[in-house]
Amino acid sequence: MDFKECGYSLANKEQMRKTSALTFQSTEKDAKKDTHFENLMTNLSNAYASDLLPFKDGKDLTECFLLQVVDILLHYIKKSFDVKSKILDFHHPHQLLEGLEGFNLELSDHPESLEQLLVDCTDTLKYGVKTGHPRFLNQLSSGLDVIGLAGEWLTATANTNMFTYEIAPVFTVMETILLKKMYEIIGWGETEGDGIFSPGGSISNLYGILIARYKQYPEIKRKGMTELPCIVLFVSEQGHYSVKKAAAILGIGTDNVIEVKCDERGKMIPAELEKNILQVKRKGQTPFCVTATAGSTVLGAFDPLQDIADICERHGLWMHVDAAWGGGLLLSRNYSHKLSGIERANSVTWNPHKLMGVPLQCSAILIREKGLLEACNQMQARYLFQPDKPYNVDFDTGDKTVQCGRHVDIFKLWLMWKAKGTSGFEAQINRYMELAKYFYKVLKKKDNFKLVFDAEPEFTNVCFWYLPPRLKHIPKGFERDQELQKIAPKIKAQMIEEGTAMISYQPCGDKVNFFRMVFSNPATRQTDVDYLIDEIERLGKDL
Amino acid sequence: MDFKECGYSLANKEQMRKTSALTFQSTEKDAKKDTHFENLMTNLSNAYASDLLPFKDGKDLTECFLLQVVDILLHYIKKSFDVKSKILDFHHPHQLLEGLEGFNLELSDHPESLEQLLVDCTDTLKYGVKTGHPRFLNQLSSGLDVIGLAGEWLTATANTNMFTYEIAPVFTVMETILLKKMYEIIGWGETEGDGIFSPGGSISNLYGILIARYKQYPEIKRKGMTELPCIVLFVSEQGHYSVKKAAAILGIGTDNVIEVKCDERGKMIPAELEKNILQVKRKGQTPFCVTATAGSTVLGAFDPLQDIADICERHGLWMHVDAAWGGGLLLSRNYSHKLSGIERANSVTWNPHKLMGVPLQCSAILIREKGLLEACNQMQARYLFQPDKPYNVDFDTGDKTVQCGRHVDIFKLWLMWKAKGTSGFEAQINRYMELAKYFYKVLKKKDNFKLVFDAEPEFTNVCFWYLPPRLKHIPKGFERDQELQKIAPKIKAQMIEEGTAMISYQPCGDKVNFFRMVFSNPATRQTDVDYLIDEIERLGKDL
Repeated sequence: MDFKECGYSLANKEQMRKTSALTFQSTEKDAKKDTHFENLMTNLSNAYASDLLPFKDGKDLTECFLLQVVDILLHYIKKSFDVKSKILDFHHPHQLLEGLEGFNLELSDHPESLEQLLVDCTDTLKYGVKTGHPRFLNQLSSGLDVIGLAGEWLTATANTNMFTYEIAPVFTVMETILLKKMYEIIGWGETEGDGIFSPGGSISNLYGILIARYKQYPEIKRKGMTELPCIVLFVSEQGHYSVKKAAAILGIGTDNVIEVKCDERGKMIPAELEKNILQVKRKGQTPFCVTATAGSTVLGAFDPLQDIADICERHGLWMHVDAAWGGGLLLSRNYSHKLSGIERANSVTWNPHKLMGVPLQCSAILIREKGLLEACNQMQARYLFQPDKPYNVDFDTGDKTVQCGRHVDIFKLWLMWKAKGTSGFEAQINRYMELAKYFYKVLKKKDNFKLVFDAEPEFTNVCFWYLPPRLKHIPKGFERDQELQKIAPKIKAQMIEEGTAMISYQPCGDKVNFFRMVFSNPATRQTDVDYLIDEIERLGKDL
Repeated sequence: MDFKECGYSLANKEQMRKTSALTFQSTEKDAKKDTHFENLMTNLSNAYASDLLPFKDGKDLTECFLLQVVDILLHYIKKSFDVKSKILDFHHPHQLLEGLEGFNLELSDHPESLEQLLVDCTDTLKYGVKTGHPRFLNQLSSGLDVIGLAGEWLTATANTNMFTYEIAPVFTVMETILLKKMYEIIGWGETEGDGIFSPGGSISNLYGILIARYKQYPEIKRKGMTELPCIVLFVSEQGHYSVKKAAAILGIGTDNVIEVKCDERGKMIPAELEKNILQVKRKGQTPFCVTATAGSTVLGAFDPLQDIADICERHGLWMHVDAAWGGGLLLSRNYSHKLSGIERANSVTWNPHKLMGVPLQCSAILIREKGLLEACNQMQARYLFQPDKPYNVDFDTGDKTVQCGRHVDIFKLWLMWKAKGTSGFEAQINRYMELAKYFYKVLKKKDNFKLVFDAEPEFTNVCFWYLPPRLKHIPKGFERDQELQKIAPKIKAQMIEEGTAMISYQPCGDKVNFFRMVFSNPATRQTDVDYLIDEIERLGKDL
């Protein structure tokens, strides 16, 4: 059987029901084949998972079922990229829990037919959010890369685990190659560099701080922290919350994370860092690590890495750079200078699933000193990491991680790199930077929009308020803020209700709710930027 | 365009090259359509990722490319289930690094053609390990579930993030439903239960211990562990190494994990646990948590949960049950009694990606007391978890986790549950238990095989040595052990070399390398069991 036999389009439930009612028009001459195919189609309504492979006669049905799933997915992909389609069809949690037009999420003791499963797949996508839509601008990770998607489909099919070369030979070698590529791009020397892919930037940041602690106090691994002095780390007040989270988990405590003041652009002020370090020392506590941010979440700020590296060197502190968001910029010759000094870091978090557009999840923790990662985490489980294997067991990565089993996050990145080359990533990222500049220029000209920081954007984040006419003439101050605070949530709620666009908002420090525009979606065009501005005005002007 | 236009089979590189050289025989009448299709085919060798969506004319090419990827995957799936195909085509790491017959893993600055990417996909699978093969018995997670696979393909296409209901409305509600189902199965009351899906059992165990610590010392979150007494946890000597790993990460220290002695079956001895607790208290240290194991990794042992629960109650200790491997057995009415007492646990790790056969990764941490998970982990990041959203923000799960972004691991499990019903999982698991009993009975009759523990298996693990004729008559003791230690690795190396089967081995305590057979692969049949025994004899008899 090939695609021809199973080939028809299942755009929606109605169409599917029609199809399974045998309205399919075959162009094949072979009557026998036709009958076989028609039987499979009829069977879907009374065929079950147990009829699929590994059931011995399940080969054709398996192929037929999977091709129909793929047809649903292809239809969804095309719709995702279609600017005229809605981003979402919003429903409240209680509506989904109660069930919607035959979409029942409850689970039963008994199996459902394969036909019902296809309907469920269609409905799952129908009530979800099209994160690949050109006007989905809600997160740092957005867009749908077709090559990355193909990579994920293959990864799911291979269904293996990164812990040993034994069962993931190709993927573990790909990881080695990609990590090396990333060390080189950071600017580390040939003999430096170690790392691993982890389940997201928060875990990568946790790794950085864990290794920093291990480097200074290796005995903690065995003895714990009880007998230690109070150790302290530093991050800017605009740094990601995962740094505090890591401190809580590691037993360091959030009180021992000092938030260093930022300038008005959101960059850590080096003099403030040094002042904080000296204060901590004076209190008899022990500084051990600074987390600098390269591309902050809300404002897109880059901390001054060279200055921070100087301070870390002066005080003997580990320098971790959280470049989860900004790391991708290293691939652009025009903009990589913004991360100048990253080569002096002891560890770096870099999420290819953000700026580089790799499907979720794909995050790397990179450590400059070889051997630390393994020394810190290894437990030498003999049932997995036998020394008497027939290959070079250095490729068994499982003893370097905080996990045991580890999802294969590498193949999609590898395939995308093959597909685009470094130059393809560069072109894509440069385009985001141009879009951000364009957006800034347009906003600047409009007197009902106000920029949170009025200068050409440093990164692809552009933060701004929309001021409805009735607020424009209230002078800046508490009264206006009270009202302005409510504007972004109201516009966003309406956008979601209508499904026209998605953009995030938040308060920050003393600034009330503002929108954060961010470019990392390859489908977004200048026309979508123009649309978004018009849409905000349309939804906000009478608020 | 539908499947017919793009429909042809790409079994291997040669075939693909032929196809792209336009040897495809269309049965379509429409000459225009034919030309369009043929153009796309020709184009693959000089088409690039940048020609795919979101490029404005990329729709047909995108569909064509993805369908060809799917064709490669379908071919692989059918081969995986074919007992006559090799499980792997073994090569050493240096061979993969150097490149194999046109499979070059190095990355370049420039893009490769779509045709080359398809070749790379084929090669990636060719040099990998078929974990769905009926004779892949190497890990606790094995097999390829077709419904789960379809679920993963959809998940990848939806490419979203679990942290907010806002961008994952269907998936977050599905998680709520599945967690509730799991609390019910564990036997917790209606008002109890909280939980989250995490990136694997090690992280789930870390959650259990983290929450246990938080419950007793909530101030650690802020203040860290420095001012605390030395806190101690307990796990059996057969428990998973992730418990020690978690202690190292959390700043508790591996020295403060007491390994409790087991009986000869690998079960924790309750009297030993109590003795250890009293010893620790006498030393002035503070016990806070016991991790019991339900289904140990190597021997498949179940700790006596009721007895352990009694001891935990008596001493006021948190009881965590690591049921990563054994949890699935709760779905079998015949065997769930082996986990009797799990309803008294404070937290449970349960990995549907193991016994239940869900594709990697899918692991849950379940906590009996509501609210603790969020209280322990929340950081209230205002850019993600805005309180002024237009829906019930209880469904934003991101503040419960140790992560920020979180992969969607729920849909494949939800779809499999719909597809099989609870009864389908039960039947599958019962079959594994029967296979284990069968395997045990066959081995028992053979005098060149020796069981590590000679009694009917408790779970699907069956551990055994193969004794080549020359060792059979050496008396038990150091000399025989020295030789026996080398047998399993040699047989395994030969199996890998020939690609006929995969089964793990390890030493354990004072026992030298033995094989661990384990049943969790739905494709494995009794004939594969017979084959494996013959294969071990064939490869081992002259060693």
